[in-house]
Amino acid sequence: MSTSPKKVVVIGAGPVGSLAALYFSHANWEVELYELRGDLRLPENLSLNFSKSINLALSDRGIDGLRNVGDNEVLLKKVLEETIPMHGRMIHSGKPSDKGMSQGYDVHGRFIRSADRWKLNVQILDALAERGNVKMIFNHGLRKMDLDAGEVEFENTKTKESVTVHTDLVVGADGAHSATRRLLQKNVQMYYEQTYIDTLWQEYHIPPHPITGDFQLSPNHLHIWPKQTYMFIAIPSADKTFTCTLFMSPSLFAGLGKSREKHLAFFKKNFEDVIPLVGEDALFDQFMRNPRLPLISVKCDPYHYKDRAIIIGDAAHAMVPFYGQGMNAGLEDVRVLFDHLALHPGDLAAALASYSKHRRPDSHCINDLAMRNYIEMRASVTSRAYLARKWVEEMLYAYIPWLGVRTMYSMVSFSSLRYSEVVERVRRQKLWMDTIAGGVVLAGVLGVGFVGLRGKTGVVGTARAVWRALREG
Amino acid sequence: MSTSPKKVVVIGAGPVGSLAALYFSHANWEVELYELRGDLRLPENLSLNFSKSINLALSDRGIDGLRNVGDNEVLLKKVLEETIPMHGRMIHSGKPSDKGMSQGYDVHGRFIRSADRWKLNVQILDALAERGNVKMIFNHGLRKMDLDAGEVEFENTKTKESVTVHTDLVVGADGAHSATRRLLQKNVQMYYEQTYIDTLWQEYHIPPHPITGDFQLSPNHLHIWPKQTYMFIAIPSADKTFTCTLFMSPSLFAGLGKSREKHLAFFKKNFEDVIPLVGEDALFDQFMRNPRLPLISVKCDPYHYKDRAIIIGDAAHAMVPFYGQGMNAGLEDVRVLFDHLALHPGDLAAALASYSKHRRPDSHCINDLAMRNYIEMRASVTSRAYLARKWVEEMLYAYIPWLGVRTMYSMVSFSSLRYSEVVERVRRQKLWMDTIAGGVVLAGVLGVGFVGLRGKTGVVGTARAVWRALREG
Repeated sequence: MSTSPKKVVVIGAGPVGSLAALYFSHANWEVELYELRGDLRLPENLSLNFSKSINLALSDRGIDGLRNVGDNEVLLKKVLEETIPMHGRMIHSGKPSDKGMSQGYDVHGRFIRSADRWKLNVQILDALAERGNVKMIFNHGLRKMDLDAGEVEFENTKTKESVTVHTDLVVGADGAHSATRRLLQKNVQMYYEQTYIDTLWQEYHIPPHPITGDFQLSPNHLHIWPKQTYMFIAIPSADKTFTCTLFMSPSLFAGLGKSREKHLAFFKKNFEDVIPLVGEDALFDQFMRNPRLPLISVKCDPYHYKDRAIIIGDAAHAMVPFYGQGMNAGLEDVRVLFDHLALHPGDLAAALASYSKHRRPDSHCINDLAMRNYIEMRASVTSRAYLARKWVEEMLYAYIPWLGVRTMYSMVSFSSLRYSEVVERVRRQKLWMDTIAGGVVLAGVLGVGFVGLRGKTGVVGTARAVWRALREG
Repeated sequence: MSTSPKKVVVIGAGPVGSLAALYFSHANWEVELYELRGDLRLPENLSLNFSKSINLALSDRGIDGLRNVGDNEVLLKKVLEETIPMHGRMIHSGKPSDKGMSQGYDVHGRFIRSADRWKLNVQILDALAERGNVKMIFNHGLRKMDLDAGEVEFENTKTKESVTVHTDLVVGADGAHSATRRLLQKNVQMYYEQTYIDTLWQEYHIPPHPITGDFQLSPNHLHIWPKQTYMFIAIPSADKTFTCTLFMSPSLFAGLGKSREKHLAFFKKNFEDVIPLVGEDALFDQFMRNPRLPLISVKCDPYHYKDRAIIIGDAAHAMVPFYGQGMNAGLEDVRVLFDHLALHPGDLAAALASYSKHRRPDSHCINDLAMRNYIEMRASVTSRAYLARKWVEEMLYAYIPWLGVRTMYSMVSFSSLRYSEVVERVRRQKLWMDTIAGGVVLAGVLGVGFVGLRGKTGVVGTARAVWRALREG
């Protein structure tokens, strides 16, 4: 148990690793930040950004992580300036005549923000560059760790030289395929689980309108074209473009082959309104050029070894991207870690053990929610029962706030309540909503309200939908 | 798709890897068998055996694996000569006055066999040494694989030289911490899960009787001292000793510290009858000297990459040792793999894919059963409901064989039915047994029979126990 540790080696200079380095720097540690790849900020490394380009949906947890470092929220303000508010989902059928159906994220008007991962990363690295006690070392890959001796060995990927570093603490933030995690398993009897889902993702790009130069879709929505077993999404960027992603099974991708005809027919059938937005030539060009990448989900336990090492971010809990929480959870890890360091001053081993024990149920929860949302986003956002239940919850949330009803989404995205607590509250909420739903009276009353809002289904049909929604949830 | 592959590199010269090498040799492949450690058969390497010394319970699947290679079952006969039949469990309370309660494994008298892992391994290696088309290379650790190029790189652990080998196929049988599996994940998007249970195992040793030189316990039983959250077992060896294992949580081990007094008190309380068998001094000596080792459970999917590589045995499905099936499942893997090679002559890629798909549910099943049996062995082997249910099933199995009732244990240990089929049959069996149990008549009839056998509970109590057993199963 070291009482006043001095030096930390952070592995991985993505947003989570960089933020961790910044926290440690402000806590007066001597910080060395190692990154396998080159410095993102150099023009020759722009291409490095590519494989991580699903735009981020920055929500409260990520914002809290950025807020709690340094003075006056300078970093946070800079970051927020570059984001675009997204107030809801816009659900598209794909038909050119259909302008989409907007589903607000929050009846109280709260929103998530589209953020560019590269910009966010650069902003944190820039903040680090101003700190006197931080060294940033790029192009260094982790090779070995002797944690009890406090020794870490890197290979300089350009010179192939090996470099041994001494440190009190290792923080692994090196992503889903974390080398830190793999080496940590030599010290820790770790529960570890990885699952690849049967879905690849491929990027497309919607440019600004060729004449007006403006966004071609509403810039304040996350656009979704749900198609049961696959889906297309578009997220706004500050340059008035949309970064789009097609999520689809490898076999369906394979079915399209390299055929321009099949690809176009596929879009015509499912996402016809997207074709003119991207442009027919660009669409096929991007289909051929952009890689198709897998999606992995990782769970493990514990995250630490004595007072020597800890893993955070995707290294600890890579998740599928369907709750928009991967990066938020990673940035929150840093804040929570420092909460636990503060709870155990001078006892790093206790702090890491306490963090690990506290964080595991939350990480596992959001990991599972992301997997569940994968199903929901593809299928049930258009189902009547889903919409009815969402509406009932939101009305209760908006007009009877003392009831304490909040949607899962709002608690995940617009609070820093523990993920596990969110799930528990939803479970309890569902129990008494089911009980209330047993009273036909309420179902009737709500049914009339629902008709007013939706204006197309009969009272009986609506009451039935509400009832079903309350029970199926 | 190579049509006539020639060379296979098998990684890991344990029983499963060696048996795989032997199968390939008989199928006229050119075989190279690589092993990280030294040759087990050399006297200086005797100590290598230690960490794997839980004696094996060889049952039908393992025997089938050994039977199906070469001519006239020469290898199998040699192996069986060195084994000791175990006809059942002997359950001990730990009280010196209690001689134990025998539970037969099979009402038809079938039995499992205690086998020495080291001897079994040596016997297979000896059989390999007689083959002209097999090279055995020890002290070589796997470093890299370029499977598409068919290149595998080893490091000679003595000279530190690196050796590159060309091969058509790689077979990884390198155990729970398989390097082949880890490298295979660079080619395959593998589902992978590892769990360490909260239990360590430590070895003790019961010597032959000091005067008679004979076994100190019944040699034809697997002896168990179940104590809810921990247990002690003893398995006979051909030299009239018993290899014993204490399974217990790390915290309980830690509670004993290095104190001779606490250790003795622990044995007095729980396994008092074991003390004179081991000897008081030897008992403490072994407690201090023998390592405490973890138990890991591994599941993955798939096991193969194209026509290039496959993992078998513990590398594919390490399991906790509580069904005595780990080695049996590994030896069965080899037989099943060759069934699939025979089903797809000339199409190795199809054979490996078909093996992988077929074997996954079975491996996952036995993995789960082993974990479940961990609970059962510690706790429910002494519960009334467990015994009642076991008795009912066995009576039906013995006296009304056309009903098709067989215990899970008998199907797992005394058949080569697919593990997944065993689980499915038990599920269906339980369904109709539950239905029958609904008729009070049968419960009554069986109750009377049960009283006759056990001779101590009343009819009502027994009927109740039978009923409960049938329902809880």
